[in-house]
Amino acid sequence: MSPAQARERFRSGERVPTAGWCRGWTQANLIAVPKRLRYELLLFAHRNPQACPVLDVGEPGSWSTRLFPGDLRTDLPAYRLYRDGAAVADLGEVTGEWRADLVPFLIGCSFTFERALLAAGVPVRHLEAGVNVPMYVTSIPCEATGSLSGPLVVSMRPVPEHLVTTAVEVSGRYPMVHGAPVHVGDPGAIGVRDLARPDYGDAVEVRPGEVPLFWACGVTPQAAVLASGVDYAIGHLPGHMAILDARDDDYRVA
Amino acid sequence: MSPAQARERFRSGERVPTAGWCRGWTQANLIAVPKRLRYELLLFAHRNPQACPVLDVGEPGSWSTRLFPGDLRTDLPAYRLYRDGAAVADLGEVTGEWRADLVPFLIGCSFTFERALLAAGVPVRHLEAGVNVPMYVTSIPCEATGSLSGPLVVSMRPVPEHLVTTAVEVSGRYPMVHGAPVHVGDPGAIGVRDLARPDYGDAVEVRPGEVPLFWACGVTPQAAVLASGVDYAIGHLPGHMAILDARDDDYRVA
Repeated sequence: MSPAQARERFRSGERVPTAGWCRGWTQANLIAVPKRLRYELLLFAHRNPQACPVLDVGEPGSWSTRLFPGDLRTDLPAYRLYRDGAAVADLGEVTGEWRADLVPFLIGCSFTFERALLAAGVPVRHLEAGVNVPMYVTSIPCEATGSLSGPLVVSMRPVPEHLVTTAVEVSGRYPMVHGAPVHVGDPGAIGVRDLARPDYGDAVEVRPGEVPLFWACGVTPQAAVLASGVDYAIGHLPGHMAILDARDDDYRVA
Repeated sequence: MSPAQARERFRSGERVPTAGWCRGWTQANLIAVPKRLRYELLLFAHRNPQACPVLDVGEPGSWSTRLFPGDLRTDLPAYRLYRDGAAVADLGEVTGEWRADLVPFLIGCSFTFERALLAAGVPVRHLEAGVNVPMYVTSIPCEATGSLSGPLVVSMRPVPEHLVTTAVEVSGRYPMVHGAPVHVGDPGAIGVRDLARPDYGDAVEVRPGEVPLFWACGVTPQAAVLASGVDYAIGHLPGHMAILDARDDDYRVA
């Protein structure tokens, strides 16, 4: 399926996590903030590049970008609306909520390197299970700006011990879509108490002989919107990504 | 010499290009723009990462940053003041010109990898000659933002043919200080008419058997300030850099 075809299905109402969709194409997180905060958001992204790699930025009030020639208000499977530092609604489209001063940022997503993991023989449990990837709010603080701060959010994939090195190396070749894991092993070391209860997405089984690997996650700006009491913002519903007209190989380095 | 010692000498009035100074430490370009333009500048940098890798950003009106604990108004050897898209003065210090709304950006500089070039056996002509590096305005347009556009500026180093590969590989390990050359060979192909007449810095000899190598240069934001008619900005005098409390090895990738 092409990105344009997927966007049309989401525009028609399909509401589903996008892991495994449009294999070979790049997926992205959305965070749209009022123009007044666009510098802070871009600086926050610059200071936290592993969690917030900026793939594209739109003009104020626009709903498409160079890499996303669809309609950002309707062509993702689902959205989360924020007011005054609280998530107030999950919505299937946000045409009425897309204020004229919103500036959309598209941030890299680790779904982008899952094809490469599979090709290297690394199993991806949430794909096997047909569910959303589990995501967790950690105890690791992001580097703040004047008005934006918050915790690092991570995605988790359980990897057989003998494939940990492979998973690190393969994902490390995609630095613009989070790159190598930020943590391997003990969830408690990064403040994750219970793998069975993710903050976003679905829990997946961690089998004997498997190690949890944690990757920086592009939901991190939404955690900053929450923690910083931002008055108005629109994100994607975690795991329900924007699918871009860009190949995953475009973000692979040698 | 430590960066703090060098900064003190510049603060005391020494006015000299900084190539070869504080070997082992990182040098940076300065561009300070009014707060109103800070988003545009950061976005311009993000869209032109090879020319404008942002190493550090200060708060509005501040004159030091985390990596530059000196005084940005006095601790560079020389400055260039811009008004309404024109360079209006070269100054030894800019205390009186440092308006309260200026936001300083520190941008990577290719001087940072010259130690690595020398260690790999690649001669650096402007160091041998004790002059400033030659810099040229090219015909390559930067990716614009709404209000900032301009040409790519490059620095040039002549390299013996048998060392071109080495120079490419070694500098390529420093992506945050411009990385590998943007062009190897014919100056005319990038709109440089006469190597003997650089737009900034000093001409250097290109000997028989040597090839000119061109690296993206952190003077590029100053060219954008000129081309875009920015009403007020302060840059360093090209080649007269900010010396940071950061090791050049901090910007080396494996």
